[in-house]
Amino acid sequence: MRATTIHAPFDIRVEDLPDPELHRPTDALVKVHAACVCGSDLWPYRGINDVTPGTRIGHEFVGTVEQVGDEVTGLRPGDFVIAPFVYSDNTCRVCRAGMQTSCEHGGFWGTDDEHGLPVDGGQGQWVRVPQAEGTLVTVPGRPGDDLLPDLLTLSDVMGTGWHCAVGAGVQPGDTVAVVGDGAVGLCAVIAAHLMGASMVVAMSRHEARQALATQFGATHLVAERGEQGVAKVRALTEGLGVDRALECVGTGEAMATAFDLVRPGGSVGFVGVPHGVELPIGTMFRNNIGIGGGIAPVRAYLPELRDRVLAGEIHPGRVFDLTLPLDEAPEAYAAMHERRATKVLLQPW
Amino acid sequence: MRATTIHAPFDIRVEDLPDPELHRPTDALVKVHAACVCGSDLWPYRGINDVTPGTRIGHEFVGTVEQVGDEVTGLRPGDFVIAPFVYSDNTCRVCRAGMQTSCEHGGFWGTDDEHGLPVDGGQGQWVRVPQAEGTLVTVPGRPGDDLLPDLLTLSDVMGTGWHCAVGAGVQPGDTVAVVGDGAVGLCAVIAAHLMGASMVVAMSRHEARQALATQFGATHLVAERGEQGVAKVRALTEGLGVDRALECVGTGEAMATAFDLVRPGGSVGFVGVPHGVELPIGTMFRNNIGIGGGIAPVRAYLPELRDRVLAGEIHPGRVFDLTLPLDEAPEAYAAMHERRATKVLLQPW
Repeated sequence: MRATTIHAPFDIRVEDLPDPELHRPTDALVKVHAACVCGSDLWPYRGINDVTPGTRIGHEFVGTVEQVGDEVTGLRPGDFVIAPFVYSDNTCRVCRAGMQTSCEHGGFWGTDDEHGLPVDGGQGQWVRVPQAEGTLVTVPGRPGDDLLPDLLTLSDVMGTGWHCAVGAGVQPGDTVAVVGDGAVGLCAVIAAHLMGASMVVAMSRHEARQALATQFGATHLVAERGEQGVAKVRALTEGLGVDRALECVGTGEAMATAFDLVRPGGSVGFVGVPHGVELPIGTMFRNNIGIGGGIAPVRAYLPELRDRVLAGEIHPGRVFDLTLPLDEAPEAYAAMHERRATKVLLQPW
Repeated sequence: MRATTIHAPFDIRVEDLPDPELHRPTDALVKVHAACVCGSDLWPYRGINDVTPGTRIGHEFVGTVEQVGDEVTGLRPGDFVIAPFVYSDNTCRVCRAGMQTSCEHGGFWGTDDEHGLPVDGGQGQWVRVPQAEGTLVTVPGRPGDDLLPDLLTLSDVMGTGWHCAVGAGVQPGDTVAVVGDGAVGLCAVIAAHLMGASMVVAMSRHEARQALATQFGATHLVAERGEQGVAKVRALTEGLGVDRALECVGTGEAMATAFDLVRPGGSVGFVGVPHGVELPIGTMFRNNIGIGGGIAPVRAYLPELRDRVLAGEIHPGRVFDLTLPLDEAPEAYAAMHERRATKVLLQPW
């Protein structure tokens, strides 16, 4: 099969690799219909994370079940499925508490599983899915191609934006500011809007993303960054600060901005992989600003968000502004790195 | 009047100082019936915080209103009142959001107010109370001396322990561990118990405090600290970790222990003034552990906690294990510093 690998910073390749096979009775084989590139894939791409040459990459995909292991009873060949960006058994006590990203038998796409068996990355034609029954979420029938982008976002960015709002504890009537205008930030706008925020400020200086944020429910746009951006958001709240800030980047600068935006007693949600982040414990103490979030257990939110997509209530797939064949994955990464694209959908077939 | 000052580390004095007078129409003069020493008073006492020689000290007191300014309509001379450890107008938008510690017109006892007028410390015979109507909470009638210790804890430690449980988001059925066996930690045990925790682990190696924690609702005691303590608490939860850890110390070591105790998706409450605390952002991200709390807005909780005390439902005053005349304040500090006393009540008259 064709699948994507990373060999060094800025060195993404699509290579011929062995087709995966069922290894465990809890496995499924999924034929991938659509995959995509994540903002977090850019950390190794940019050399900020270490890279082991030849590593499989990608963790978002939708597809059809082709084969299942003997112990998989809830999935059948032909089922259309969405894969969360972490696989999990969905039955251990951590999963039952809604934290599938910390599953006792789970793991990441593109690395070895708990039995030492390799797991495929998501940016390829096929994927062996461990813990298939706990991991995959089915979509009734065979959704039309027009729904694929929306459903694909449920693998990660939509659930991650949702988790940011959950982590911050967004309540009806809250004033909310979203830091970061990537796909996750835009999906966090959807989440804050759906949760009943009375004000949703999207911080973005990119025209197309501003337009999308407004479509998604942003009531205000602030193009400035840093201190100027903070001043502008504070002015919208008569100097008080917002109830919740949703940090959807992961850098120290974005986190500092998020804390500067929040009123005493408010809170910050965070979902970006932290790079160079130090939490301002003094400010948190003096102003009673809490923080919640982390790597998003999107599996927990998938059934609800799937139903909202199928009902036409949300259209997170609009974050995709470029579609390329899988073989052009290198260009997909470059386009996102250079901010020519918000999010790129890859077609493996 | 006689009042307490700090001149240098380990140099606490009780001095003859001018009686306070009403300065502003929103002031009240309160005759102090009981005051006490706080764990946070030990930071300057131990020289960990800078000390300006001659600074007034103390921020916890109950007493009777003796005079009120022209604009104070809700208080009358003779009213028995409890003072929170921060004064506040209780009407600004931050106070209305329940964050009186960040009041737009509030401040700390023993420092100048927003008009540059000195405010007395709490460890003295008299206190000029700014923003008196917003600050002071009355107790119906004249409570008996047996109730004074319970009511005095509502100035700080009981409300602070309560805030720790609120900050962590303790829910009925939760498993909770309390780090710190000072007065605040012991009051956090009361709070977790009242909020319906199914397991409350008190981490203490001090026999008298262990006994009090058990009286207050602790279901388990763990005497070990650091890694051994963490292992013991984890064993109580079959290795998973507790739902909530209440950090009631403020040191880096206590905070690290709190995070090590919590299960994925759980949370930490914190109320100790942070000294050398760095939050483990990587662990927080990977395990989805949030944190909430800060300097406790005890004013927000005072009416409810007062009613619980008057109903005989809680007895936080049991944290006082030494009572001294005000003039022996230096010994009160020494006793707490050397852990010979958990909390010392001072009698100014």
